[in-house]
Order: sequence, then structure tokens, then C-alpha cells
Amino acid sequence: MKPVDPATASPEAKAVFEDIKATRNVKEVNNFWKYLGNEPRMLKHTWESLKDIMGPGALDPLTKELVYVAISITNNCEYCMASHTAAARAKGATDAQINELYAVVALANMTNRLANAYKVPVDEAFKT
Amino acid sequence: MKPVDPATASPEAKAVFEDIKATRNVKEVNNFWKYLGNEPRMLKHTWESLKDIMGPGALDPLTKELVYVAISITNNCEYCMASHTAAARAKGATDAQINELYAVVALANMTNRLANAYKVPVDEAFKT
Amino acid sequence: MKPVDPATASPEAKAVFEDIKATRNVKEVNNFWKYLGNEPRMLKHTWESLKDIMGPGALDPLTKELVYVAISITNNCEYCMASHTAAARAKGATDAQINELYAVVALANMTNRLANAYKVPVDEAFKT
Amino acid sequence: MKPVDPATASPEAKAVFEDIKATRNVKEVNNFWKYLGNEPRMLKHTWESLKDIMGPGALDPLTKELVYVAISITNNCEYCMASHTAAARAKGATDAQINELYAVVALANMTNRLANAYKVPVDEAFKT
Amino acid sequence: MKPVDPATASPEAKAVFEDIKATRNVKEVNNFWKYLGNEPRMLKHTWESLKDIMGPGALDPLTKELVYVAISITNNCEYCMASHTAAARAKGATDAQINELYAVVALANMTNRLANAYKVPVDEAFKT
Amino acid sequence: MKPVDPATASPEAKAVFEDIKATRNVKEVNNFWKYLGNEPRMLKHTWESLKDIMGPGALDPLTKELVYVAISITNNCEYCMASHTAAARAKGATDAQINELYAVVALANMTNRLANAYKVPVDEAFKT
Repeated sequence: MKPVDPATASPEAKAVFEDIKATRNVKEVNNFWKYLGNEPRMLKHTWESLKDIMGPGALDPLTKELVYVAISITNNCEYCMASHTAAARAKGATDAQINELYAVVALANMTNRLANAYKVPVDEAFKT
Repeated sequence: MKPVDPATASPEAKAVFEDIKATRNVKEVNNFWKYLGNEPRMLKHTWESLKDIMGPGALDPLTKELVYVAISITNNCEYCMASHTAAARAKGATDAQINELYAVVALANMTNRLANAYKVPVDEAFKT
Repeated sequence: MKPVDPATASPEAKAVFEDIKATRNVKEVNNFWKYLGNEPRMLKHTWESLKDIMGPGALDPLTKELVYVAISITNNCEYCMASHTAAARAKGATDAQINELYAVVALANMTNRLANAYKVPVDEAFKT
Repeated sequence: MKPVDPATASPEAKAVFEDIKATRNVKEVNNFWKYLGNEPRMLKHTWESLKDIMGPGALDPLTKELVYVAISITNNCEYCMASHTAAARAKGATDAQINELYAVVALANMTNRLANAYKVPVDEAFKT
Repeated sequence: MKPVDPATASPEAKAVFEDIKATRNVKEVNNFWKYLGNEPRMLKHTWESLKDIMGPGALDPLTKELVYVAISITNNCEYCMASHTAAARAKGATDAQINELYAVVALANMTNRLANAYKVPVDEAFKT
Repeated sequence: MKPVDPATASPEAKAVFEDIKATRNVKEVNNFWKYLGNEPRMLKHTWESLKDIMGPGALDPLTKELVYVAISITNNCEYCMASHTAAARAKGATDAQINELYAVVALANMTNRLANAYKVPVDEAFKT
């Protein structure tokens, strides 16, 4: 698939592009949205979900970007690693925080497999 | 494999169990460590890594527990979900934060696949 | 590993290459098979399985190619995404269908994690 | 987390529950939605996305349910396997189709790794 | 799906069941094969592939069972962990070997993510 | 992140680099360690774990490298595939062994999904 040119996008896609630009105060949407423009319904649902969940809420926005990076590393999604690392830095993440995040991601992927391998039963104290 | 009984564990395993109890101020280690006691070298490396990385650092400990939960959901590790959710709650996580975390995890797993499917090229602005 | 040149392949590999070309009515096998030629036993098993399962059966061949693309996106296998998208198009898949497929893949990866996160018990009505 | 009782749910969650029941012509929503009621924003986004994408479109609804089952197997999500297999059967899937689907899922997960292992370069003919 | 009763299986499935029993010198096939009997074509392909690859070859059979266990832990497949651990033990695996295997599996899942996170470029010396 | 230049690394990182070079009898550490030098604590833990577990033990070092390659293929980690395949070859792995390994990896990923799809219950004989 080719990215959709915002200038010639469908009205539905164009409306989302405009909302992204206004919400984020940027002049151009990034590549992810241009490609998603090929499926305007999914473009709209994805944008509305992200706008709603990734902004201020119960968790601060930086924490949520770091979680996003952590999952993108686990799933090996290069684009998502790049875009959400940039977003985390824009929200104040330091090199030290990103390096420590990588360590946490690595350890979690390690202990996940140890728990699976030994089929460790959940402690009573952890049940809710 | 059966869990290792701390009372009859090898000296190497016993030393780690004691350090876990002292560091966390608990009377008994949780199941994960008892099973890992079957491989005392890995027990030691895993504990020393977690003790070093998961405590106070560049990121606050609660953020790191939330990242751990996020990865454990992505990898479908039930034990790790339970133990790190308990740890997150002990560090102050609210229901609202955990529910929002689940939403972020879900969205990241969704957009990871959209970026893969469209093979979205990384924007110049995201390259570092 | 280097791809195996069909001209100098082992007799076992050559026999599979010939069957692929005859079955698909093509002049050359695609790269996947040339690399798999390094392990002629696996080349044979893989080809015989695909020939048997991916042709007409209980499901139509296009549906099966779309399933193949969906899994390849989920696993982030670029080669398989490319080859099975090409196969799907050759069997009639339209851009609209492929875009909608991407949306389904993304949603499934999202709701899979929501079900895991909340440890949703299977409804009685869904048990068989 | 406990499931949300529709009788005492927040107005936002209740509105989604009512729409699910009306759209699907059922008396009660299934467990997935009750748990998701803990995060009404995500409940709404997930439902609106699924309602929009999983109904009639470029692909027929049965094909989309089968894709959903395929991904749920790949990710090992038991709830999603159960609920979407039930949905596929309700839309006409036969045992023979489901068994053949399982075979396709297995083969795709196999050849995905063969392509990765050999780092097979994408054929020119597959590039678009 | 229900398991297929070998007594009433289709001739194709029955032939595979008989070959499994004769090859392995067992009185009954294990559950995996009974369920796979629902799709006799896939039953046959899976058995023929495993019989051919998992026996003596370039690698010794125990090594191959350990690899199988390692992947099953990584993918969190409980049945495959159980059946291939039993097969590894039958081929001589000791507790010490299985515990060490678990450690290797955990470390590989950890360093896989570190390499992804840092996008480490492949050293010239490792290219072939 | 940029790789850390060993000449200007922190004392903690430099000490690990020196130990890697001495242990492996090489003149330069490979890229993985240079990038990990950005997080000296994780550099140290990772190196100490690998040095301890991947050397001679209950399993021979070649078997452990093959397991590492198998998991790296399953997780699609290109760097780890390259570095541990090189390590396996240095420990004596032949082309025939590597090709057979790829076949085992592919089959395990296949049968993992068949066991999941059919929800095969663990045979009594496999329970320990």
C-alpha cells in the first residue's frame, strides 16, 4: 500500500488528519497516519482511541509513552519504537530513563519465561 | 520441577532467599523464587538484576512495575501479571491506573500490527 | 545460508522444485523454496503440506491466503507478508479487502490483550 | 478486577451495553464486555471499532471471524478463541472449515520461522 | 473439538495412529494425535515431518527435544512443554540439564529484547 | 542510542569490557556490548549471567548456542540469530546441523499452535 496524500484524501480521512494536526499542533501528520488513511474507518477509530487514552488521565502521559515503547520492543515493531521513543523524549524522558526502561523490558521478558518454564502457581497473597 | 524448600535449600539458594526477605522485609519468599531455587546460579543472577534495576533509579519504582505488568500481559504470563500487579498496588497503583494501563497495552498491541502491516517507514523526525 | 541453485540441487530438492513449477505453472520457484533447498527433507514436507492444505478444500483458497497474511503480520514476518499478499491478490483480493484485513488483525491483537489483562472467564455459551 | 454489573454500571458503560444488546439482538452481553466496563472509554472505543469493522464490508463476516480465531490461536488467547469460534459457527462455519483453519494457522506459524531463519529476501515479483 | 477415538477413526487417521504406535513402540497414541485426528491430512503431514526430523540426524535426538522445550516455553504452550519435557527425560535429560535449559531460554528472551531495543547493527564478523 | 566507545566508557562498563575480552580471548567486544554500555548495571548483569550459564555446565556449550539460535528465530531477533549462529559455528556446528535446527524450530512453532487450537489436555503420563 502507498501512503495517502492528505491533499487528495477522502473527506473522512482528511477530517482525521486535520484533527491530529490541531490536537498536536503540528504542520503535517506522521507516516503512520498517512498509511492508515487507506482504511478511513480504522484511521478514525485508532486516532480517537489514542487521543482519548494517551492524554492526561489516571497515568501521566510520559508513563504511557514508556509503556508503549516497552511493548513495541517486546513485539519488535521498529516504527512504533521510533515514534513512541520520540514522543517520550518530547514529554521529558532522559537517556538514563530510556536505558533503564530497556533493562526493565529485558528483565520482564526473561522472568516471564522462567515463570512459564517452572509453571509457578500464583501465591495466595497475589490473588485478588 | 518442585519448589525448593528454603529450609533445605543449598547454601547458595539460602543466601539469596535471606537477602530477598531482608531487602523486602517479608517473612517468606514468594513462589517464583522457590521454584528458581532449582537453579541457584539463575536464582542469584535474577535476584541481583531485579534488586538493582527495579528499585529507585532514573524511573520511579511504580512506573517500572506498570511496565512489567504491560509486558506480562503482552506475553500472556499469568504469574507475572499477578505478582507485578500486586507489587504495583503495594506501590500505590489505583484501579483507575490499572484500567488505563490495560487500555494502553491493548492499543500498543494494535498499532504495532498496523505499522507492520503497512510497513510504515520511520519518519525522518523520529530518527536519532 | 545461500539459496540452492535449482540447476545443481540434490535430486530430492530438484524433484520438489519441479513439482512446485508444474503445480503452480511457473517457470521458477520463488526464493523461499530455494533457501529451503538446503534441507531437502523439510523442503519436501513443507511443500507437500502447503500443496495439500492451501488448495481447494473446506475453505476457499483466498480465505486461506488472507489468514496466512494475518498471521504473518502478527508474527512480523516480512517475507511471508509479501509472498502471501501477492498470492491473495492473484486469487482476487482487492485493496479494500486487504485494508479491512489489516483492521481485523489489529483489532484481534488488541482484544487478545484485553481478554488476557482482565483474565475474562469463558462464558458458558461459548463452551463446546 | 471484577466484572461490572450492567445494572449498576456507569451511564457511559450502560449505553454501550445497551447498544451491544440491540445490535446483536441478545439479552445479555458476554463476559468480555462486563470486564471492559471497568474502563468505559476503552469499552466504547473497542465496541465501536468492532461494530464498524466486523460487520459486512469488503470481506464477509465469516472470513473475519476466522481471521480472528487464527490470530487468537497464534497469540494463545483462550477467551478469544472460544468467543470467536462461537461467532464463526453462528455465521455458518463447519467443523471441516475449523479443522482446516487450524491447519493453515499451524503452517503459517511454521513457514514464518523458516523465512526468518533463512532470512529469505523478498522476490522482486512480490514487491509492490 | 473432541479427540478422535482410534477405534472409530477414518482409515487415513487409523493408518497414522498405527504407524505412531509401531515407530514408538507404545500401546496408545498420546492426546495430541487423537485431537489432530479431526484433520487427517494435517495429522499425516505432522507425523511424517516429526518422524523424519526428530529422529537421529545431524543433531542428536535429545538436543532436538531440548530445542522443542525451549520454543514451547517461549511460546507458552503448556501441552508441548509437558510432552517434550517427557520425551527429553526419556532420552536421558537430567534435572540439572532441564534447569540449565530454562536459564538459557530466559536469557535468550532477555537479550533478544536488548538487541531490539538498541537496534544493534550486526557485526561484520557475524555476517556470512 | 549510540554505542559506547570502550576507550571513553565509564569505569564500570570498562571493567566488563575487559572481562569479556579476557574471557573470550578477543581484541574487541562485539556491538551488543558496546550498546549495552549505555546502561552499565545491565551490561554487568547480562555479562555475568551469560558467562555463568553459557559456559560448560550440565549441557554442552554448543547445545546452548543452538537453543539460543532457536529462540532468536522464534522471536525474530536478527542480531541474536547472527551472533549466536556465529558462536555455534565457532563451537563446531555444521551446515547440516544448522539446517536441521531450522526444521525443528519450524515444527515446534507449528505444533505449538496445533496444541493450542485443539486445547489438548496434558496426558497423565506427561504430568510430573
